[in-house]
Amino acid sequence: MTHHAFDQAVRLTPSSIGVYTGHTSAGYWNMVGPFGGATAATALNAVLQHPDLLGEPISLTVNYAGPIAAGAFTVTATPRRTNRSTQHWLVELLQTTAAGDEDVMLTATAVTAARRTTWSHDEATAPSVPRPETLASGMTLAALEWINRYDLRFAQGMVPTDWDGQGDASLSQVWVRDEPPRALDFCSLAAMADVFFPRVYLRRALPVPAGTVSLTVYFHADGAQLQQSATGFLLGQAQAQAFRNGFFDQSSQLWSEAGVLLATSHQIVYFKE
Amino acid sequence: MTHHAFDQAVRLTPSSIGVYTGHTSAGYWNMVGPFGGATAATALNAVLQHPDLLGEPISLTVNYAGPIAAGAFTVTATPRRTNRSTQHWLVELLQTTAAGDEDVMLTATAVTAARRTTWSHDEATAPSVPRPETLASGMTLAALEWINRYDLRFAQGMVPTDWDGQGDASLSQVWVRDEPPRALDFCSLAAMADVFFPRVYLRRALPVPAGTVSLTVYFHADGAQLQQSATGFLLGQAQAQAFRNGFFDQSSQLWSEAGVLLATSHQIVYFKE
Repeated sequence: MTHHAFDQAVRLTPSSIGVYTGHTSAGYWNMVGPFGGATAATALNAVLQHPDLLGEPISLTVNYAGPIAAGAFTVTATPRRTNRSTQHWLVELLQTTAAGDEDVMLTATAVTAARRTTWSHDEATAPSVPRPETLASGMTLAALEWINRYDLRFAQGMVPTDWDGQGDASLSQVWVRDEPPRALDFCSLAAMADVFFPRVYLRRALPVPAGTVSLTVYFHADGAQLQQSATGFLLGQAQAQAFRNGFFDQSSQLWSEAGVLLATSHQIVYFKE
Repeated sequence: MTHHAFDQAVRLTPSSIGVYTGHTSAGYWNMVGPFGGATAATALNAVLQHPDLLGEPISLTVNYAGPIAAGAFTVTATPRRTNRSTQHWLVELLQTTAAGDEDVMLTATAVTAARRTTWSHDEATAPSVPRPETLASGMTLAALEWINRYDLRFAQGMVPTDWDGQGDASLSQVWVRDEPPRALDFCSLAAMADVFFPRVYLRRALPVPAGTVSLTVYFHADGAQLQQSATGFLLGQAQAQAFRNGFFDQSSQLWSEAGVLLATSHQIVYFKE
């Protein structure tokens, strides 16, 4: 356990087996709730801290059901089925409203597995982009606090500086690491899968309201491969496939500095107008 | 309700609100259980038949927890949160084992929503391939019964005919429709998102054991757009991004014959060796 702001953001205190209390973190605040990546990482952390955990994360799907308010929340993680080498998890994040109701703010499922060494191959190879040292740091996107927790260096597809409605593509390529640097683990990798701002901003060059509805992360790397990334930059790439009547998707990849595909991710995002 | 074999495969009989009984279908049998696409469609059907349903499907994630045995099963669908225009669902498929236990065979989450007309654009456009009428029908893949329920016409990336270990890419482009033809709906679209055989077969040209662990479908089309597809072919495309120590991913797109991107999908698949 380090004293990095990220560890504080995903910290959970067990109250019984599979039931935890957590607290939103001002350092990862987004527009109307916590940064979705930090919330996804918190959901994953509930699985990783469970005493019955089998193996390491393979997939995580997080559904954002409602805007989490600043303050305390409860997370439950339940292994719904444990096989010889795979385990299926259900996770929920609940928050007590001002009216005293227990509201579901997030539902999630995860699969963990004991991996075996097999033939391996990355078909999606990292794009050729300038090294992070040669690129400017920073992302211009309102005054969102969580952005300050990342060192983002865009090679392509930065947030528009002119919101002129003249966008023509949704592709971003960006180096990312925690700020200050922090050794990569499954939780921080899950969070980084959500650092790509809504593709509709880029494609339209219009700041239309948008928010992630569902996020899926596939973990290709095991713990040893994450350790090899240490505190290095990851190269991220994100692009949309379709924008249609209130929702669009975005697909992303995260490679290590050494060019190993660590995770692929997909999300479906609400947008207005 | 038609008498098509697909309707029979996804049929659910409510026993109480959100609790249904169903039965596996010999017509959609795969190697050691039902075709995963039919199972995903069954899970979605439990949501669509629920009396409290809001809107139409936006996303569906299905986790295959265990091999469903031939016979009856129970499906539960629970709206965990209903907002003004979105609704978050939890679905499980349970089966009573020979020993009398109630085993979780599938967990799923779904998001449904009331869509509004907005600016829309397909960034992922359909590849240029020969029309289905000019291509041979059929897929050579063991004696899997479910394959006979589809008319599959490969433009590229057919199952290897020589299992010689000499594969070099995982991309398939294939026209697909129900056999016999059936008007497209959300359930059949979800099933078609899983017609792409395991990418490892193609990439390695080796028939290694493989099975989907988790499948996510994003529905870009609304019901009216599905109706426009009627009984026409869809053009599907699938490709892997990474094969690593027992698991690989595959991403897919399904366009209408008119070139509208109806759904995008992702899955993570277990493989051996």
